[in-house]
Amino acid sequence: MPKEIERKFLVDKTLWQQLEKPQGTYLRQGYLSTDPARTVRVRIAGERAYLTIKGKTTGISRSEWEYPIPLADARALLDELIPASIEKRRYVIEFEGRHWEVDAFEGANQGLLVAELELQSEEEAFALPPGWTGRYQRMPAM
Amino acid sequence: MPKEIERKFLVDKTLWQQLEKPQGTYLRQGYLSTDPARTVRVRIAGERAYLTIKGKTTGISRSEWEYPIPLADARALLDELIPASIEKRRYVIEFEGRHWEVDAFEGANQGLLVAELELQSEEEAFALPPGWTGRYQRMPAM
Repeated sequence: MPKEIERKFLVDKTLWQQLEKPQGTYLRQGYLSTDPARTVRVRIAGERAYLTIKGKTTGISRSEWEYPIPLADARALLDELIPASIEKRRYVIEFEGRHWEVDAFEGANQGLLVAELELQSEEEAFALPPGWTGRYQRMPAM
Repeated sequence: MPKEIERKFLVDKTLWQQLEKPQGTYLRQGYLSTDPARTVRVRIAGERAYLTIKGKTTGISRSEWEYPIPLADARALLDELIPASIEKRRYVIEFEGRHWEVDAFEGANQGLLVAELELQSEEEAFALPPGWTGRYQRMPAM
């Protein structure tokens, strides 16, 4: 039962646009359960797809289970069962030895930029890249 | 995207106890989502385990997707994320060329006997075994 420890920040759009960055991965995802005690996410990442289950957040830790599923199943689940799916492009940005994931949202959330860092422990220190602004509060449906 | 067509009946306890039957399979299961538009079930069946997703019922048909998961994951999901799991023993009973699945519930639902038949089409005819009494109405959490 792996634990996930993450920190999220908003990213300044103007600085982001000036940044030299890799191509990113297209993501489409939605939730079969948004109950914070047992979320179930369907995600398409490029040509792969996954079911991800997460338990309740304790501090900034969460239990997480992930299973690969066929891409066609994920498309059918999102099309037929989940009215509100989200599309975004995910970039991996390296800064001072850390790998940040930055999500650039499309569709209804166009323009929103969220940077996430996974940590090994809740006390671990890290440096913020320029352009990383305020803390971002998790919304279950994202 | 397979479709599931099923009919459910209650079974008379006295007649059931007199029936000669196979040993059955122990099942433990619970739901990560009980929303009828997108249920997500975790099930342990003997030494195997599965995640099963079902869509909205249309008539007596339902879209269904099923994925095997490790038994240890299923136990952790049921123990940590799902407060109300259900235990039952499932028997397969043959009657006039049909395979009925009969669930004998344990725990809080001890004594409840539900027989289920899967059909190829919604119009298909079938014979009821003796002891199969009234129609059983599905409850999402079962």
